[in-house]
Amino acid sequence: MRQGTRSWIFLCASLVFLLLGPASVQAGERLFQYSTIDALLAGVYDGNLTMGELLNHGGFGLGTFNTLDGEMVVVDGVAYHVTAGGKAVPAPNDAKTPFAAVTDFDEDTILRLAPAESMAAFNAELVKGLPSPNAFYAIRIDGRFPWVRTRAIPGQSRPYRPLAELVKEQVVVKYTNVQGTLVGLWSPAFVKGVNVPGFHWHFLTADRTAGGHVLDCAVGAVVAKVDQLLEFTVKLPAEGAFTGTDLTPDRSSELESVEKGSAQ
Amino acid sequence: MRQGTRSWIFLCASLVFLLLGPASVQAGERLFQYSTIDALLAGVYDGNLTMGELLNHGGFGLGTFNTLDGEMVVVDGVAYHVTAGGKAVPAPNDAKTPFAAVTDFDEDTILRLAPAESMAAFNAELVKGLPSPNAFYAIRIDGRFPWVRTRAIPGQSRPYRPLAELVKEQVVVKYTNVQGTLVGLWSPAFVKGVNVPGFHWHFLTADRTAGGHVLDCAVGAVVAKVDQLLEFTVKLPAEGAFTGTDLTPDRSSELESVEKGSAQ
Repeated sequence: MRQGTRSWIFLCASLVFLLLGPASVQAGERLFQYSTIDALLAGVYDGNLTMGELLNHGGFGLGTFNTLDGEMVVVDGVAYHVTAGGKAVPAPNDAKTPFAAVTDFDEDTILRLAPAESMAAFNAELVKGLPSPNAFYAIRIDGRFPWVRTRAIPGQSRPYRPLAELVKEQVVVKYTNVQGTLVGLWSPAFVKGVNVPGFHWHFLTADRTAGGHVLDCAVGAVVAKVDQLLEFTVKLPAEGAFTGTDLTPDRSSELESVEKGSAQ
Repeated sequence: MRQGTRSWIFLCASLVFLLLGPASVQAGERLFQYSTIDALLAGVYDGNLTMGELLNHGGFGLGTFNTLDGEMVVVDGVAYHVTAGGKAVPAPNDAKTPFAAVTDFDEDTILRLAPAESMAAFNAELVKGLPSPNAFYAIRIDGRFPWVRTRAIPGQSRPYRPLAELVKEQVVVKYTNVQGTLVGLWSPAFVKGVNVPGFHWHFLTADRTAGGHVLDCAVGAVVAKVDQLLEFTVKLPAEGAFTGTDLTPDRSSELESVEKGSAQ
């Protein structure tokens, strides 16, 4: 065997080992998250993670942008920036986030779901189809929806107020008979304080020009694509407001009012 | 240039890229954890992660073994199995854990600490030296200690009882004027339910033949080596008791009694 051939065989074997070795995990099996939901609730609205870095960890997910400027919806490897009013544009590669969670979406299973009159009713059916509540799930639903009500909060100026106080500034948009994609995450109860326990949904229209954080919606008969994620990586900010913020209080009630869009 | 030489250059470049690429993180900057502390408190005493797999994620840390058989102390790349009574031996590569957390220890900083009469007094001083409570830290202290009181719980049989009920079966050992290593982790408050908030200490004698979970100790003037960890990866069991266990209750008071070794 020529030396070049032997080298190439060794090269290929090394690459396979590095990519599939026991210490590695396929990106598609892991939820990657930057910062924590409680830090966001506490007013840590500026982070140091760029879209370029975030998208290295996955092309499907949700979050927000620095200064809490609107909502982030990540679909098919593109991070869309939804500003107050609902307009969506692809975010530049150097835009930064204070909070986001992404994965590489790999469909593990599909769930065929009956129509539901509300997000709460839809979630109640969907959770029955998840193998265990003690895992993470990325959920993708492409379809036509009777209506979707979304919100986005406008960017803030310093000094930042807590998130629960800003819900009254949210801009709500209702899309009717709309084609689009629901981007959802399920997080288990035990990550309370780190991510949003239960379902968290963002929406993007099929033409990728509008969307937001879903407050409520009606859903027809749809197919939900589900990706179970058994690894969860949190990257914590190394500097800035995060390091000095009091992250010991239980902010569950603040979170509920923020997620549902009801001012406290 | 000969083809073999070109191939080797390409091989080396590929390896460097894969090991240092933008999506990768040095193992030394990340705490890797298997399962959650609340699952352990709830009686999930059997996991599927072998020592071989665990040690791929780091050679410094702590945990326990399947059936809750004693305590795990990981130092210098070796996972030691401390059984009830305090005897330590290297665990076989195929031994499994239901809960463990490890990192590759890289000393970021050292803290020179004054003598302390108790673990609580020592912890109170040590926390003042940490840059932020909102990160993870691995802490290594090699030295001679006036005394260290440790415990280990004997392996259990099914049906498993909750951990807080088993504290009365713990075997406590007191080491006096003992040379050894304190292996510590600091976890931030926001991972309550996932890991132990605050400090968690295990101990191993210098000859690596004895140790356990530290209940209390006195500490002379020591140097603490500190490794700040800004990434935290949790690997969740894919099957077994974990998936069906109710992980919604707040088990903080159970955890406190278990960590301090006081029966409820």
